[in-house]
Amino acid sequence: LTDTTALIGVDWGSSNLRVLRIAAGGAVLDRRADPRGAAGLQPGDFPEVLAAVAGDWLTDDAPVLVCGMAGARNGWAEVPYRSCPATAADLAAGLVRPDPDRAAAIVPGVAFSPGGVLTDVMRGEETQVVGLAADGVVVAPGTHSKWIVIEDSRIVSVRTSLTGELFAAIRKATMLGAGMGEPGVDIAAFRRGVERSLHERDLGAALFSVRVEALAGRLAPFEAADYLSGLLIGAEVAGQDAARLAGPLTLVGDPALSARYAEALDLAGARDVRVADAEQATAAGLWRIWEMTR
Amino acid sequence: LTDTTALIGVDWGSSNLRVLRIAAGGAVLDRRADPRGAAGLQPGDFPEVLAAVAGDWLTDDAPVLVCGMAGARNGWAEVPYRSCPATAADLAAGLVRPDPDRAAAIVPGVAFSPGGVLTDVMRGEETQVVGLAADGVVVAPGTHSKWIVIEDSRIVSVRTSLTGELFAAIRKATMLGAGMGEPGVDIAAFRRGVERSLHERDLGAALFSVRVEALAGRLAPFEAADYLSGLLIGAEVAGQDAARLAGPLTLVGDPALSARYAEALDLAGARDVRVADAEQATAAGLWRIWEMTR
Repeated sequence: LTDTTALIGVDWGSSNLRVLRIAAGGAVLDRRADPRGAAGLQPGDFPEVLAAVAGDWLTDDAPVLVCGMAGARNGWAEVPYRSCPATAADLAAGLVRPDPDRAAAIVPGVAFSPGGVLTDVMRGEETQVVGLAADGVVVAPGTHSKWIVIEDSRIVSVRTSLTGELFAAIRKATMLGAGMGEPGVDIAAFRRGVERSLHERDLGAALFSVRVEALAGRLAPFEAADYLSGLLIGAEVAGQDAARLAGPLTLVGDPALSARYAEALDLAGARDVRVADAEQATAAGLWRIWEMTR
Repeated sequence: LTDTTALIGVDWGSSNLRVLRIAAGGAVLDRRADPRGAAGLQPGDFPEVLAAVAGDWLTDDAPVLVCGMAGARNGWAEVPYRSCPATAADLAAGLVRPDPDRAAAIVPGVAFSPGGVLTDVMRGEETQVVGLAADGVVVAPGTHSKWIVIEDSRIVSVRTSLTGELFAAIRKATMLGAGMGEPGVDIAAFRRGVERSLHERDLGAALFSVRVEALAGRLAPFEAADYLSGLLIGAEVAGQDAARLAGPLTLVGDPALSARYAEALDLAGARDVRVADAEQATAAGLWRIWEMTR
């Protein structure tokens, strides 16, 4: 019975789509991925793309619950953000059905507006937070890294860093990126980058060190991408306040990237850090939110 | 007599070339500019490009003095850096003639190696510093912004920030840059960006505010480039130590960019700031270095 589909979970990010076949309880039975992210689609495209990727899973019995950028403006249907503090029940109460005839619903994102001033937003990570069901700080590294604080099972704040997008832009559009390989080759070079940024208030100055280190013969071409990754992740970690670094911290994202963040957090003195499975967190979160609607 | 050419001055940057006809004393009589920067040339190309741009000025009587990236590895001829502390006389002593048959010489760049460890370099700005002939801090904003400290007419340190290149890369290769106009339109948006970065340790987090400010309706598309420029220049200024900000500070660079830096420095509490003419500084520096060789 546990291999019966209870929910089709969809994590529709800006640049890719993941569809999960989920059993009652939140276990993942099967998965599909597709590069047709929400950023490249028109509202009318979403049902077709979903049918193309996982049409054979879409039966009358299996409800579809979607999180991520499908709920953004210009997405499948705009789902208003829920404000912090936000609970799993708040998210369940904010679901929007993009198509009245079908059993698909989209989870709202969460907005952080201290003193009534909107300062940060997320779409997708709130569902992982619900799936993790742990107080403390959830860090979701990636194109836009999210630091989410959870107290008494309520999301109380979110803080975003453009780290991943900055890394890609520097590699693509600066002289530092010329001839640079892939990160993940040299952990020592990564650590040196982190240390540099932990002691440097100006990221632009830290970035120039990529050039000087190479000029001085201290940074080989194969080490450069890791050093750069260390500079950027180090700057992100250095910008967090002491309460966030005190944790407990849960990393949820790409495993290799999460491992690098764990290393950077260790160098910054954070001691209470664990790495969670991102897919499992998404599935558990979708299941939990879905259960609250019944 | 003062309109007689005494020196042909060349400022050969990475991405452009400036040739100055200089009178005795350092006054600029005439100027030419060309987009053939040193980064796109092979060593053998330099004499030809110079002749193409200013061949009619190159007589037997007028010596040619070059500063900038023409002296870099893979430039016209590699000129070893002089180490801090460096005086104008040190620069004059380090001139290299790329072609023994001609009266052209290249000014060395300056390297900063505290405790014997190379941490920063410059090529070109040292000549402007000599031309300005002022103690304190010279800030040369641009693709690679330089903060140069001068004590007792000696260059004692240089610190580089990749600010301008980062600005270009973010505009070119991130979603923030999509549809962004040119900076220089809205000084209030620039100031908001500076203030944000003065109070934000993580540039990646400050950068995400470009998206949130737009989402919240607080940043119009025409303001976005100025806001972004403010974030980046603000982060550069915030990363300087108190001694540098105490000045006296002299800004030398593109006039519009120098004006923005003056605004950012004012917001950061720097009170002793002046803006100098960059071309005049280069010409005066080349003249002064040339005089020392005779």
